[in-house]
Amino acid sequence: MSGGEGLFIPNGFRAAATRAGIKPSGGLDLMVLVADGPCAAAGTYTTNRVCAAPVQWDRAQTPSDRVRAVVVNAGNANAATGAAGVANVRRTAAVAAERIGCRPEDVLIASTGVIGHQLPMDRVEAGVRTVLDRVSTGEESFQEAAQAILTTDTRPKVVSSRETIDGEPVTLLGLAKGAAMIGPRMATMLGFLLTDAAVRPNDLQAILSEAVEQSFNCISVEGHTSTNDTVLLLAGGASAGRSPLSGESLARFAAMVNSACTDLARMIPDDGEGATHRITIDVEGCRDREEARTVARAVADSPLVKTAVHGADPNWGRIVSAAGYSGVAFDESDLSLFLNGVELYRDGVPLAFDATAVSEGLRRERDVHVRLVFKLGSGSIRFWTCDLTAEYVRLNADYTT
Amino acid sequence: MSGGEGLFIPNGFRAAATRAGIKPSGGLDLMVLVADGPCAAAGTYTTNRVCAAPVQWDRAQTPSDRVRAVVVNAGNANAATGAAGVANVRRTAAVAAERIGCRPEDVLIASTGVIGHQLPMDRVEAGVRTVLDRVSTGEESFQEAAQAILTTDTRPKVVSSRETIDGEPVTLLGLAKGAAMIGPRMATMLGFLLTDAAVRPNDLQAILSEAVEQSFNCISVEGHTSTNDTVLLLAGGASAGRSPLSGESLARFAAMVNSACTDLARMIPDDGEGATHRITIDVEGCRDREEARTVARAVADSPLVKTAVHGADPNWGRIVSAAGYSGVAFDESDLSLFLNGVELYRDGVPLAFDATAVSEGLRRERDVHVRLVFKLGSGSIRFWTCDLTAEYVRLNADYTT
Repeated sequence: MSGGEGLFIPNGFRAAATRAGIKPSGGLDLMVLVADGPCAAAGTYTTNRVCAAPVQWDRAQTPSDRVRAVVVNAGNANAATGAAGVANVRRTAAVAAERIGCRPEDVLIASTGVIGHQLPMDRVEAGVRTVLDRVSTGEESFQEAAQAILTTDTRPKVVSSRETIDGEPVTLLGLAKGAAMIGPRMATMLGFLLTDAAVRPNDLQAILSEAVEQSFNCISVEGHTSTNDTVLLLAGGASAGRSPLSGESLARFAAMVNSACTDLARMIPDDGEGATHRITIDVEGCRDREEARTVARAVADSPLVKTAVHGADPNWGRIVSAAGYSGVAFDESDLSLFLNGVELYRDGVPLAFDATAVSEGLRRERDVHVRLVFKLGSGSIRFWTCDLTAEYVRLNADYTT
Repeated sequence: MSGGEGLFIPNGFRAAATRAGIKPSGGLDLMVLVADGPCAAAGTYTTNRVCAAPVQWDRAQTPSDRVRAVVVNAGNANAATGAAGVANVRRTAAVAAERIGCRPEDVLIASTGVIGHQLPMDRVEAGVRTVLDRVSTGEESFQEAAQAILTTDTRPKVVSSRETIDGEPVTLLGLAKGAAMIGPRMATMLGFLLTDAAVRPNDLQAILSEAVEQSFNCISVEGHTSTNDTVLLLAGGASAGRSPLSGESLARFAAMVNSACTDLARMIPDDGEGATHRITIDVEGCRDREEARTVARAVADSPLVKTAVHGADPNWGRIVSAAGYSGVAFDESDLSLFLNGVELYRDGVPLAFDATAVSEGLRRERDVHVRLVFKLGSGSIRFWTCDLTAEYVRLNADYTT
């Protein structure tokens, strides 16, 4: 289930959002997710060397078995802000912890927005106190929380699912944001997953890390890895008296997490700034998954491939050329290419095809399928991106000013 | 000297160009550079795994001491064309060699244009015979040759210089093309340098390789490494009876080549498709030159950095963020950033600055200077790129169709 209608809300969590005055637009820009009791928590974070102060904070706290809340602001990334930025994260966590009755270390923080500006702490502190007074279990609170983490996104990104595992209902809710500066190398932008399952912290971390490899690490808008990428997964079942999942049950829960992460991840390039096409890239027959990802990322990040798709131009040479400079070793005769199911290039030789029909298909459909098949092994990956349009340029030529 | 007025033409070379009918526009699209006698020849080529048939041919022939001609077409890249493409290169070289009176292996070939289409060989063969009948030593012939290698370039790229070395005048002439698919990893697109100096083939190759590292390998338009990148350097002095340069004289000749390559390379992003700004990126204080190049390339290729410059937006967080995901290891406190001479970020801490004044400077000037200073060592590089505009998207959304 996705899109936000009739959400499943996991037991033991409450949410609220407010207009703290961080976004110049005056929109919702601060939210909290609060657990009734201590949660197991796992996180994956950006590999950018310039990583935001909240990323440094969360990385130090996870995996954990006593997380109580996540505080998230949009409109300011608190990245490249030096020691003052780190102190502001600590202060935010302390203000929330005092209200909740836990340690500051039990409060995780995430931020997104412009890089290099200090947070307006008077507004942040007032906002944190306001939202903590308002938290509720109602669906609307979670919908507002999903709204409050957006920046240039045109719509919120929410998924939820419920399954019976070990005879008990297990609910999983996920929120994400992201429309640009998307080129994740560990996790992308912001994603938050909540569950009422009981899962040991190390199991939770392993499940999240693998899910992120197949989802958030398989998307790109323009290949610029953000300073703030964070995906957090909170499991509150243990503090509600449930026994930790293991074996087959844990695997079923992992499948729920995989599915939620993949659904959320795909929503990001689908909402890519200015995008008119949603591009799925399958790379098959590589030596391993990482080689396949390297090829897929080179194709996904090529402005020439992205503009060709935008222009409904079946200029497939740009795709094989991007594969060629990806850094993966292959001979041309190892490679075949399909575009929307039509084989254009087989074993290094161009094939005759109906360019007009392929172009018309590109123009008509929002979804584009690129498939590169190598003969090097059995490594494969599915990757998602979007096209590059003049609207993307317009949006990014005046973001801060 | 550059720009094409009052060119110095090296002794012993002739040129001609024609409209062979390869470009749909009907413009000049085939040219030859012919030497009166055997030349020393050096080449550097794309590292793209999908490399064009003419690149494969030239790579097998260089370095050489008996090259007689270079045949170049625009409008068709002869890349990703399989065995038929390779046979077409051999056929082109054989047709030229028969007319000139040399071996096919003494004729180097280069192509640029759309990928994945077979050359129209009837037109190519007729064109080669036509141009070889017309070659002349006149400046106009070389100007037309520089015109015939262009694709989406808005102007030809020509440099020439003359110096006295060992008591004799040494002349160097260089031609290049390129406006997109520019992200060279060994050489970029097409560049041709002719000299009447006498230089041993291995010296010539060493000089060209180092010059390319500092010039064509330091530019980018959108980071897409072409399938056809080729830079060739022909030295004809030995067959005119000159003694090979060595020692100090060879170093002076190398400096001429460096200067010519740098001037030509800079013209390429300056003519980048749709570009409104010329961006120079200095990276200093890295562990070595390759680390500095890696940081510079990440900044140069970031669509977010490029669109911010286009919008005259001093959104410097995008620059340090791109450095952060470049793959080079550093702490934020190792990094300082200057934009057009204004320090914005020192040792990992943002500085107060007059954003309006910096923005006005970006809006007013075509030249933008980005300087990243690390504290890791003494490795540095100067890199050139351009901004990303809606016009780039428009140009690339309908290139083949």
